Amino acid sequence: MRYYILTLFPEMIRTALNESIIGRAAAAGAIELHPVNIRDFSADRHKKVDDYPYGGGAGMVMQAQPIYDAYLFAREKAGEKAPCIYLGPQGATFNQKKAHALAKEEALILVCGHYEGVDERVLEEIATDYISVGDYVLTGGELAAMIVCDATARLLPGVLHNDASAVGESFENGRIEYPQYSRPAEWRGRRVPDVLLSGDHAKVDAWRKEQSLLRTERFRPDLL
Amino acid sequence: MRYYILTLFPEMIRTALNESIIGRAAAAGAIELHPVNIRDFSADRHKKVDDYPYGGGAGMVMQAQPIYDAYLFAREKAGEKAPCIYLGPQGATFNQKKAHALAKEEALILVCGHYEGVDERVLEEIATDYISVGDYVLTGGELAAMIVCDATARLLPGVLHNDASAVGESFENGRIEYPQYSRPAEWRGRRVPDVLLSGDHAKVDAWRKEQSLLRTERFRPDLL
Repeated sequence: MRYYILTLFPEMIRTALNESIIGRAAAAGAIELHPVNIRDFSADRHKKVDDYPYGGGAGMVMQAQPIYDAYLFAREKAGEKAPCIYLGPQGATFNQKKAHALAKEEALILVCGHYEGVDERVLEEIATDYISVGDYVLTGGELAAMIVCDATARLLPGVLHNDASAVGESFENGRIEYPQYSRPAEWRGRRVPDVLLSGDHAKVDAWRKEQSLLRTERFRPDLL
Repeated sequence: MRYYILTLFPEMIRTALNESIIGRAAAAGAIELHPVNIRDFSADRHKKVDDYPYGGGAGMVMQAQPIYDAYLFAREKAGEKAPCIYLGPQGATFNQKKAHALAKEEALILVCGHYEGVDERVLEEIATDYISVGDYVLTGGELAAMIVCDATARLLPGVLHNDASAVGESFENGRIEYPQYSRPAEWRGRRVPDVLLSGDHAKVDAWRKEQSLLRTERFRPDLL
């Protein structure tokens, strides 16, 4: 997968992802991460990228031209078929099913807004998808874009150490994952459940399924 | 607000937030960001922080001791009253209402898991809240923790240039925000809606309210 991330904060994307599991996957060649600085495409001689909103109101609006030209640059590299995703509150709520669908693409163009928003006309022109990562307001689309990168990249071969790790996770089967325990067997008076020390794999599996169901009932009954 | 973020990737947090609006707010003294490296607290002579899961299965589990000692360090600085939030799939889904509630705290301790998860016993010992930023699986809790930082910090005085910018946003009133437009009035044959050029503030307000409702009906009917 090749990711093209249009942003006013390319260093935020570059450094954050470089330091993560996703950065390791990029270093190993399993994925490519290409932040594209929208400001580099401003036709304004002061490299301005925003202006006051028509109709008034607080804050500034990102103008169409720099985003559009950054998009043309990215599309040239990403290919005509690459979805162009705007990260914003009007988007469909991102979930694990959407992560699987996007992980099948060869390239993604992710567009990060800022300030009060983005001139609607450029979104009409370039966006093929709108995605929201949740019902909360962020200062920009960068963290949302990184979430889409992380959630899709970890589904690709060679990204996680152990490909089995991507299976049986929370949300993959519509349940919250069972609790995990590691050494030591007793810590601050709390013991690991006996069944996990029993060596009886069938019992371990049954216990984990039960725990997964109990936790889903307790924490996320809406998933059932 | 003071944020204490327990993580195995402190540079990811530090660099990403430094390059963002939140980083500017931290530089200006409006908030404090303190990544705490869990590995620094490992009692193991090889600074090991994870081990195999009891009961078998793919991947590694983060052990209780290093997280607990990192937590004690952070709590000493954050104060006894600071919520300790574990970012994970079993959490309550984060939203704008929760962002407002957390923004009232003086300090937050945010705990980022990794690998297959975290030894359940340390979460029982330290976590006061469990938060999930959405129904998708990430390689770790870092992006989720940064989302909580960003969504809460932007509600605090002195973080956004214009405090009015935090009002009237999507989700604040249960609606998706109206479309925005900026110069030029015509771009690639697309004109700004006439009402926004009319100078009639009452008409502009009425149009924006209507658009906000239409977009919510179209994109997020579940909010209505």
